[in-house]
Amino acid sequence: MSSANVRVEEARQRRLETHPPLTENPADLDRTDPARHIAETAEAVRNWGRWGEDDRLGTLNFIGDAERAHAATLVRRGASFSLSQPFDMNGPQQGWRRRTNPVHTMLDTGTDAAAGTQGFPHGIGGADDVIAMPLQCSTQWDGLGHIFDRGLAWNGRHAGQVVTSDGDLITGIEHAASVISGRGVLLDVGRHLRPETGELDDGYAITVADLESCIAAQGATSAVGRGDLVLVRTGRYARALREGWNGYAGGPSAGLSFTTAGWLHRTEIAAIATDTWGFEVRPNEFDDAFQPLHQVVIPNMGLTIGEMWDLEELAAHCAADGVYEFLLVAPPLPITGAVGSPVNPIALK
Amino acid sequence: MSSANVRVEEARQRRLETHPPLTENPADLDRTDPARHIAETAEAVRNWGRWGEDDRLGTLNFIGDAERAHAATLVRRGASFSLSQPFDMNGPQQGWRRRTNPVHTMLDTGTDAAAGTQGFPHGIGGADDVIAMPLQCSTQWDGLGHIFDRGLAWNGRHAGQVVTSDGDLITGIEHAASVISGRGVLLDVGRHLRPETGELDDGYAITVADLESCIAAQGATSAVGRGDLVLVRTGRYARALREGWNGYAGGPSAGLSFTTAGWLHRTEIAAIATDTWGFEVRPNEFDDAFQPLHQVVIPNMGLTIGEMWDLEELAAHCAADGVYEFLLVAPPLPITGAVGSPVNPIALK
Amino acid sequence: MSSANVRVEEARQRRLETHPPLTENPADLDRTDPARHIAETAEAVRNWGRWGEDDRLGTLNFIGDAERAHAATLVRRGASFSLSQPFDMNGPQQGWRRRTNPVHTMLDTGTDAAAGTQGFPHGIGGADDVIAMPLQCSTQWDGLGHIFDRGLAWNGRHAGQVVTSDGDLITGIEHAASVISGRGVLLDVGRHLRPETGELDDGYAITVADLESCIAAQGATSAVGRGDLVLVRTGRYARALREGWNGYAGGPSAGLSFTTAGWLHRTEIAAIATDTWGFEVRPNEFDDAFQPLHQVVIPNMGLTIGEMWDLEELAAHCAADGVYEFLLVAPPLPITGAVGSPVNPIALK
Amino acid sequence: MSSANVRVEEARQRRLETHPPLTENPADLDRTDPARHIAETAEAVRNWGRWGEDDRLGTLNFIGDAERAHAATLVRRGASFSLSQPFDMNGPQQGWRRRTNPVHTMLDTGTDAAAGTQGFPHGIGGADDVIAMPLQCSTQWDGLGHIFDRGLAWNGRHAGQVVTSDGDLITGIEHAASVISGRGVLLDVGRHLRPETGELDDGYAITVADLESCIAAQGATSAVGRGDLVLVRTGRYARALREGWNGYAGGPSAGLSFTTAGWLHRTEIAAIATDTWGFEVRPNEFDDAFQPLHQVVIPNMGLTIGEMWDLEELAAHCAADGVYEFLLVAPPLPITGAVGSPVNPIALK
Repeated sequence: MSSANVRVEEARQRRLETHPPLTENPADLDRTDPARHIAETAEAVRNWGRWGEDDRLGTLNFIGDAERAHAATLVRRGASFSLSQPFDMNGPQQGWRRRTNPVHTMLDTGTDAAAGTQGFPHGIGGADDVIAMPLQCSTQWDGLGHIFDRGLAWNGRHAGQVVTSDGDLITGIEHAASVISGRGVLLDVGRHLRPETGELDDGYAITVADLESCIAAQGATSAVGRGDLVLVRTGRYARALREGWNGYAGGPSAGLSFTTAGWLHRTEIAAIATDTWGFEVRPNEFDDAFQPLHQVVIPNMGLTIGEMWDLEELAAHCAADGVYEFLLVAPPLPITGAVGSPVNPIALK
Repeated sequence: MSSANVRVEEARQRRLETHPPLTENPADLDRTDPARHIAETAEAVRNWGRWGEDDRLGTLNFIGDAERAHAATLVRRGASFSLSQPFDMNGPQQGWRRRTNPVHTMLDTGTDAAAGTQGFPHGIGGADDVIAMPLQCSTQWDGLGHIFDRGLAWNGRHAGQVVTSDGDLITGIEHAASVISGRGVLLDVGRHLRPETGELDDGYAITVADLESCIAAQGATSAVGRGDLVLVRTGRYARALREGWNGYAGGPSAGLSFTTAGWLHRTEIAAIATDTWGFEVRPNEFDDAFQPLHQVVIPNMGLTIGEMWDLEELAAHCAADGVYEFLLVAPPLPITGAVGSPVNPIALK
Repeated sequence: MSSANVRVEEARQRRLETHPPLTENPADLDRTDPARHIAETAEAVRNWGRWGEDDRLGTLNFIGDAERAHAATLVRRGASFSLSQPFDMNGPQQGWRRRTNPVHTMLDTGTDAAAGTQGFPHGIGGADDVIAMPLQCSTQWDGLGHIFDRGLAWNGRHAGQVVTSDGDLITGIEHAASVISGRGVLLDVGRHLRPETGELDDGYAITVADLESCIAAQGATSAVGRGDLVLVRTGRYARALREGWNGYAGGPSAGLSFTTAGWLHRTEIAAIATDTWGFEVRPNEFDDAFQPLHQVVIPNMGLTIGEMWDLEELAAHCAADGVYEFLLVAPPLPITGAVGSPVNPIALK
Repeated sequence: MSSANVRVEEARQRRLETHPPLTENPADLDRTDPARHIAETAEAVRNWGRWGEDDRLGTLNFIGDAERAHAATLVRRGASFSLSQPFDMNGPQQGWRRRTNPVHTMLDTGTDAAAGTQGFPHGIGGADDVIAMPLQCSTQWDGLGHIFDRGLAWNGRHAGQVVTSDGDLITGIEHAASVISGRGVLLDVGRHLRPETGELDDGYAITVADLESCIAAQGATSAVGRGDLVLVRTGRYARALREGWNGYAGGPSAGLSFTTAGWLHRTEIAAIATDTWGFEVRPNEFDDAFQPLHQVVIPNMGLTIGEMWDLEELAAHCAADGVYEFLLVAPPLPITGAVGSPVNPIALK
């Protein structure tokens, strides 16, 4: 640890000593005072300066070459799992904040090639296509510029100086192009808490105790620590596959409790993803609130969050062989200045 | 090999016996007769039926769990390389066939969050974005529905029944979502043939002899065989980085000679990618021609082709340590019915 | 009338003499045999060749300079009415055939200008924007290439040679850029048949008798004849404004009966528009059907159709002063090769 | 004139008395001090409050019913002219500030209909399309939210409170949906000053004297006054049609001199449009400048500006019959919150 980091860590320790510990019991939250809880929790989990003033990666810094080399050793059978939902017009988006499903159209088609209207020589024909889509329309990473806390972005920067209509000028997702691969760990909380259905109820807030008991139940391959890419399965997507979207995008769902912020911090994970639209429990745990856990962990902790992942096939495989760790390679598209990216995450076991 | 495959292979062998061998010397091509060369070469390298009537993957079938498990053992240091060019308005596209550079716009910004105009509670602010882009605007895979040969698509299907304005109804790139990872091999033909600059001249047609001598010179880690993902570096992108695009998209460039089709077939590679716009040499090797090697290898051989990859950092690393093989994970976005996909390929060494 | 046109007209007259007259009573339709009714009606109202082999305008040819000059005399008070619905994400589209509502995003904003991040000299700031939208997302004209009848497009051309993935190569809406202005006539069938509410029931098929009785009731300014641009108000949009879309795009609605085709033909109107999504009654008047009146009048008659117009303010004004004719200027955007166009139609009274 | 307006006008008169008159001679401009000239000119031509605090229309308020009724009387022959350039990929945009040419793609085609792949009953086939385009890609109006002067928008509002990433919340172009029609006047300065070619040199700054002499030469039908929609032809588009774009979008061009601001104000015109990309002369008349006349007239005067209009056919007609006035109907698409709009302006003579 560099001397600068030592100083950061010492400051954080002193801060923690002078503050009451954060609750990890949702029942202790004052539903009427999100502002206080957000402020206290943000203070407790803040990583600003931990990786220098110029940092663009946040907790992704926890992954290094050694972590990736170790993760590769987890590939035994060579089984490959795509954790991406489809990208098409049948997706969950319904227009909230102008988020549509992807519109994929053809510039050239096989019917045209067959009709001989393309004008190419020697019998070659072609098809070509375009897409228009929100970067958060389907399986995606939230970039560090996606959420702000009281006007500030990751590392304490002013939101207005980070993300303008030209995009994220500092923490654009392109900076994470090569770094998001490492040891993946699946915490199948849905199967753990609801073995009969594998699906949590909407509005169920996953607690630290739930995460820990899931790890304990799943066994040693589920241990979570520094640099890991943690995947939490609630079963919400399984229900959408069975019953239709029914409010998948923005509606009620199980998800992480606000009170897991401390756990997300002290485990020093690199990133986390879920099979839900919003990562955290919905409705949120305060009366008048919008994604308070996002507000704490993205701009303060520097945590990269994945949403709308398809964990079904992987989870079935893990349940079958009892091994919950794997190599996860989940690179964002390096869209310059993007605050999020579609991704097709690949788990290799 | 299944009995069906045995029959396919036997038929192919008989066909080869009754045909003159394909030339592997570009000088032997009759520049005035692309149709004949295309027809003969397509016949010789055709894999239709090899993986059954319903196949959607072509040569990607050469990758199995064993190949992926082996590939993972190639990760030693854990070094990670993104092989993607940026996705932004500074890209190479100039409008040919309505291909533009990606247009990335913001739905919400940090300046808005800072100005307090977003209407969220408790100090949370957000940024969100959308993109409109051709699927072939930057680093990409060509899907099997991208090119047709005389009205036929991969596996002998009628082009007009495969790709309509609803997209590729059969071989859409979503079917390859989980399969494109395995052993990557870099053939740095630019450095091999031009050690002083590392860059081939525009119009230089890379021959089978070039590929073989490059493999020999690079050593044992460069051996190419069944199921490999082969990356051929010409140096064209290095020049674009230095001098600007100057016709990178569609203009003159080094690339594979038409005469490499047989080599691409007999090596049984799973896919190939280059650092150029068009994979094959440009101008093409016939007087009136458009991408004849595409016409042979995509619909006939079922070969997946990558274009506009950034091989610079990886190539420098390989040159330094003398190891040209690695785990390559390069999943397309599962855009339903797409005939291509942007990709951020990750090489782990 | 040119000698060619005389021949066309004579042929049409002979054809009509040898055919039974078309029914104008919906009850006479055989709900199980749309194909027969479509074939007979198409034959009876077909205008192919009427304006020459190269025609791109169909019934818009009925408007000439004299008609426009007369229409301008209808402007008395100078009152101006926009007949366009809004273009935004709150529109009626729900994704059918990939039709979304318009996605309007900013390239530059005032918040950015105020934050001083734009890099312009001497205090200038700017805002700029982009849109992605189906051309039929809101108030629009259907171009002549929008609908085909058994493989044939307007004037008897083969559909596959008219509209490829490059767009409408022959009858693109750009050819109508300067011609769609003339005498507008409002037929407020909603107010006429339902004076208490002004709104027809969903599924109500407007008949020739309804149109004629509306004209008679509204008085002399409602007479419909050659070259007129006829606007038919059902009240469907009024209900959407009051109650929300509720299936406005594609759901049940009043609209023109299939049996009005003959009237649309013999009146020699130039174009027609309604305040509904689909112009014709929905559900359609056959058991298994999709927009049969479109199939008859666009490719066969060459009729230009407008949909999703906002006739509310204009209708109120007409009801108040008893004058139902006006100058209508409704130019499409000249999007090269488009089969439809958004439009902001202007009525001047 | 209302008493409020009387007060505004009196204040403006007092202000003018205490200021030196604005120069109308470009040679008097201090090329090194755009800030001073902009400040002085903005002060002199400012219309803030003239139409009330809530105004969204600026000088478009000069058009009333009487003006439109009079304009309709100018239609004599009924000749119709579209003043729109095409909307397609062959347009002038080259990517500056992410402005591309329109990308028009098909959702359904005639080739598909002919191939029978669409799934509709009774032989109906269809074609449908989408577009992605900057609102300023081709013939367009600048909305009042398009330009800011030192952080302020039209009527003195704060730019950051007017145009966010949600669009123009106050002066969106939808508010002008029904108002932009009236008396059009063509000032063919290109033909007037350069009768032999009809085209001004690039960089030529059109002065007040030029405008006045053009009016005098063209005769009584060219008189310019309150509520008029003035079209200034430079000939720049004629050259683009002949020679290719050659920097049409953003490059050198004739255009209005900065010194015409006073004339634009005192004539009380409603709007102005030119056949150039940028309305004002380029390069601009200060050493380090960007569109200073925009900065003065849009946010301060509230003037609506049209750009990239095709005045060629209309100008030829006016030159032939010597009549330079006509009814102009040029409604923007009511895109909610847009700061500009594509338009197909129609001149009826």
